[in-house]
Amino acid sequence: MIKTDILIIGAGPTGLFTVFEAGLLQLKCHLIDALPQPGGQCSEIYPKKPIYDIPGFPEILAGDLTRNLLEQGKQFEPGFTLGERAETIEKQDDGSFIVTTNKGTKHQAPVVAIAGGLGSFEPRKPLIDNVARYEDKGVEYIIKDPEFYRDKKVVISGGGDSALDWSIFLADVASEVTLIHRRNEFRGALDSVEKVRELTLLNKINLITPAEVVALKGKGKLESVTVQKEDESFELQTDHFVPLFGLSPKLGPIGDWGLEIEKNAIKVDNSKNYQTNIPGIFAIGDVNTYPEKLKLILCGFHEATLMCQAAYRIINPGKKYVLKYTTVSGVNGFDGTRKEAPKAVVQSIK
Amino acid sequence: MIKTDILIIGAGPTGLFTVFEAGLLQLKCHLIDALPQPGGQCSEIYPKKPIYDIPGFPEILAGDLTRNLLEQGKQFEPGFTLGERAETIEKQDDGSFIVTTNKGTKHQAPVVAIAGGLGSFEPRKPLIDNVARYEDKGVEYIIKDPEFYRDKKVVISGGGDSALDWSIFLADVASEVTLIHRRNEFRGALDSVEKVRELTLLNKINLITPAEVVALKGKGKLESVTVQKEDESFELQTDHFVPLFGLSPKLGPIGDWGLEIEKNAIKVDNSKNYQTNIPGIFAIGDVNTYPEKLKLILCGFHEATLMCQAAYRIINPGKKYVLKYTTVSGVNGFDGTRKEAPKAVVQSIK
Repeated sequence: MIKTDILIIGAGPTGLFTVFEAGLLQLKCHLIDALPQPGGQCSEIYPKKPIYDIPGFPEILAGDLTRNLLEQGKQFEPGFTLGERAETIEKQDDGSFIVTTNKGTKHQAPVVAIAGGLGSFEPRKPLIDNVARYEDKGVEYIIKDPEFYRDKKVVISGGGDSALDWSIFLADVASEVTLIHRRNEFRGALDSVEKVRELTLLNKINLITPAEVVALKGKGKLESVTVQKEDESFELQTDHFVPLFGLSPKLGPIGDWGLEIEKNAIKVDNSKNYQTNIPGIFAIGDVNTYPEKLKLILCGFHEATLMCQAAYRIINPGKKYVLKYTTVSGVNGFDGTRKEAPKAVVQSIK
Repeated sequence: MIKTDILIIGAGPTGLFTVFEAGLLQLKCHLIDALPQPGGQCSEIYPKKPIYDIPGFPEILAGDLTRNLLEQGKQFEPGFTLGERAETIEKQDDGSFIVTTNKGTKHQAPVVAIAGGLGSFEPRKPLIDNVARYEDKGVEYIIKDPEFYRDKKVVISGGGDSALDWSIFLADVASEVTLIHRRNEFRGALDSVEKVRELTLLNKINLITPAEVVALKGKGKLESVTVQKEDESFELQTDHFVPLFGLSPKLGPIGDWGLEIEKNAIKVDNSKNYQTNIPGIFAIGDVNTYPEKLKLILCGFHEATLMCQAAYRIINPGKKYVLKYTTVSGVNGFDGTRKEAPKAVVQSIK
C-alpha cells in the first residue's frame, strides 16, 4: 500500500505543480498516470510544440514546461505510479480513500486530487478482428521502453509524428523496422519526414505505402501480419506490431466514482477550493468544470494552489496556516535542501 | 483623452499579463501606474530577489519576471501612463468610464481592471517640519530619471538597498553625492555595501554616519540641508535631497470609488469573473478579496484571464468567443507579428 497526503490522479502540468504547492504546506504527493512518463498531453502529444500563454514565458516548448515543473517540485520528492490507470476508489472508515489501479497497485490518502486533464488517453486501435487476442503478445499501442524491441522485428503502422519518430528511433535498436501507412504522404515535423526518407534509402527502414495491416497471425503470440498494398496482399514475419494511430481522451473509470459529471467533466465548487460533490475529492485543471471555466494550463495552476489549502485543513484539522512568501521565507525541501533569497547583510561601511 | 478597451490600474505582474490575455481576444489595454516603471513591487521593491512559486520557474528574479511579461505582451502594444496615480473615476452615459490621474491625464474605457496590488506605494517621508514646502523643489522621494541629477549636488538619506544603489549610480552622474544614514550599519545586498565602501574611499561618495537631516533651507527652492551628526550640527549646500526610507502601500484614492472594500481589499465575485460591485469594474491580483483568496502572483494570472472573457462580452455584446489554444492557433500581434508552432508538413516520402 502506497500512503501519501495528497494522491494526485494525473501527472500533467496541473498535477506536477500541485507537488510544489503541497510541498510548501509540508504535504507529500503521489501521482498516478496511465502514460509511461509524467507531463500528460504536454509530453505525450505535443512535447516539441511551443505554448505561448504560460505566464512569464513568451514561448516555451511543452516538453520544457514539463521538465521545469518536475524540477520545481523535485525537492518535495513526489512518488509516481506510471503506466497504470486509476480504476476504483473506496472510502475508508477513517475518512481516507484507497485508489486501486488497473494493475492492482493500491494507494491510500486522506485527500484525492483528480488532475486528469481530458481523461486518460486511450490508444485508437486498428479495426482488425483478432487484435485484442494479441495485445501484450506482440501488439502494443504505446511504446513504453524501446529496449523491449532490441534485435526484434517490428512493424509500425501510422502516418503521424509518433509513427515517424519511433521508426527513426527503433531503426538503431530493432533488427528490422517496417513502417506501413495507408497513404504515401506523412504528416509530421519536416525533419522527421526527411530522416525517415533518408533511413529508407539506407534500407534501415522498410517503408510500405500505401498499405494497411489487415490481419494478424501467430500461435500464442504474434508471428506475422498480413499487408494489403493496393491490389496485392502478402505476409510479413514480425515479432511486434505497433499501431500508432493517436490517442483519444476518455474520462474512463473516474466517471463511475459517484462524482457529479457535466459535459464529460467533473463539477467543482469554484467559489471555494475546487472540491467535488464528495468531500476530500477535488478536481483541478482541464478535468473540472464550473461557471466560466477555461481549459488553460495557467488556470490549473491556480486551482491546484487553492486546493492545497483545503487539503491542508483536512489533513491538519484545527491548525491554522499562515501564507508565507517564497521570496521571504524560502523553500524547504523534504530532501533537506533549502532555497532562499540572498539575505540582506547588515554592516558598517566605515 | 486616451481611449482603450481595458484600462488597467496597476502595471505589476497581474496587470502586465492582462495585456497578453486581452490581446488574444483582440482587446487593447492601457496601464496606469504611480511608479515610474512597469513591474509593480517586483521592479520597485525586490527586482533582484528570486521568486520560487511562479509555475514553471524553479527560480526567477522578480525583475526578470517583469521583463518576461513585458516581452510576452509587447505585440499587443499596450499603452502606459507611468508616474501618475489614478485619482477619480466617472461613469459616462454610454457605460464607459473616465479615469483621471493626479496629473490630470484622462483615460476612457468600457472596462476598468484594477490590478493595484497592495495599493499605490507611497514613500515614507522624513519627519522634517517644512519638507512639504520643498517637494518637487529639490526634495524627491523616488528617483524617476537619474539624468535629472546630472552635475547637481545630491544628498541621499536612508540605510537600505535603494539608498545604497542610487548613491552608487549617481556617483557617476551627479557632481557630488552625499549619503546620510542614522546608523553606521547599512542593510542591503553585500555587493552594494562593498561598492559604497569603495566609492567612499575614492571620495566619490561623501558618507556621513551616524547622522540625520533635521532641517531644510532655501528661498523658493532647496539650497541646503542641516545635518545633525551626534552632538554636532552643520549646513550642507545641495541642489537635491532624496530621502529613500521605503514605500508603504496604500489603497489610496481607489478606496473612494464606491467599491465594496473588505480588509483594505476590493471584494469581487470569484464564482464568476472577479467583477466588483460596480459592473464593468473588475479587481484582479493582490488588490482583491474573496473567500479563500491567496495573494499570490499565480492567482492574479488566473483572475486576469477569466476577467478578460467578461471584458470581451461587455465590449462585444452578443458575440460568442470560442477559446482557441495558442499552441494550435498561434498568436496574432496588433503590430502585425505572428507567432505560431511549426506546422506539420504533409509529404510523400518515396
